Amino acid sequence: MPAKPPFAKQRVFQSTKINCGINYGYFIFIIVKHTEGLEWAIHSCSILAALPPETALPTRLLAAFFELPEAYLAKQLQKLSGAGLVETRRGPKGGYALAKSPADITLLALVNAIDGSERHFHCSELRQCGPTAVSDKQYPRPCGIARSMWKAEAAWRAELKNTTLKDIQVIGYSETPPEQAQKALNWFKEKLAQS
Amino acid sequence: MPAKPPFAKQRVFQSTKINCGINYGYFIFIIVKHTEGLEWAIHSCSILAALPPETALPTRLLAAFFELPEAYLAKQLQKLSGAGLVETRRGPKGGYALAKSPADITLLALVNAIDGSERHFHCSELRQCGPTAVSDKQYPRPCGIARSMWKAEAAWRAELKNTTLKDIQVIGYSETPPEQAQKALNWFKEKLAQS
Repeated sequence: MPAKPPFAKQRVFQSTKINCGINYGYFIFIIVKHTEGLEWAIHSCSILAALPPETALPTRLLAAFFELPEAYLAKQLQKLSGAGLVETRRGPKGGYALAKSPADITLLALVNAIDGSERHFHCSELRQCGPTAVSDKQYPRPCGIARSMWKAEAAWRAELKNTTLKDIQVIGYSETPPEQAQKALNWFKEKLAQS
Repeated sequence: MPAKPPFAKQRVFQSTKINCGINYGYFIFIIVKHTEGLEWAIHSCSILAALPPETALPTRLLAAFFELPEAYLAKQLQKLSGAGLVETRRGPKGGYALAKSPADITLLALVNAIDGSERHFHCSELRQCGPTAVSDKQYPRPCGIARSMWKAEAAWRAELKNTTLKDIQVIGYSETPPEQAQKALNWFKEKLAQS
């Protein structure tokens, strides 16, 4: 008997054959979506990219700026920090700052940091299940269905890798209403002066 | 006050501003993944594509063939039927059959039928939240962050649209172990003769 997988208690169905049915039920309620934390993280990084490099922002200010729950935003920023995309600065003017130039932070790195880098399509080797499966050795390549799904994911990742925070910044500079840009700058100046 | 959204009871956070914070908490536990039903649906369609066109398969046989829970597989087949990708044939030799030629069934159509066609990246217009937001009219285009994420999704969809069940079938014909192909054909013949 192989060791129980860590998610065994979440399984709602188990096949009698060990390579089959092992994950069934586990992903049933998971839908194709990004976490909202990703949206928050990209927006937070955009703000960090727009401020002078010597500025660090505490989570509290970012949360207030976007009207977000601070505790949950903190988790996203910790994930970005763990991935080396932002750094924490200590002291009275401490907080988060970008750890790299915006041109070196891709959307793919942000997605991987927040939502993980696992493939979206999970192959449970269905072709090796059921009454007509044959020896493992007769399946030298991954299933063609999985490969086709993964090819599409590769196109998605390539596009994300090709877009940087700098590109987002360029759009932001040209499209943010000037009135808002000025209000935001003043708001951060005032709040940072108080801290 | 606007009407409560249907998922109101699932919200864990609500901003004081109506356009902001409205969905917060709703997607927190949703991760970027396909449902496993998608894998089952594509494999089921591949089997239907491989059998003679006059053959219809009851859910029971498809479930037994892949060792899947019949009730949950039935839901996936109903979704495919609702999307016009498979059709139900009645009578003693009844069951599911493809409603179109394999060359006319794209992976995108299968994904949309099972997992839905909604965008993966949800934009909650964060730029219009918080103390520095300005009038709605000053944001004529969708947010640049959302547009960048959607561009990557478009690349993913384009690739899925470019791959058909016929392509999957060609891979299957060349890579399925001959021993399994023969066993599978015999298994279906035998089971269909009994029904």
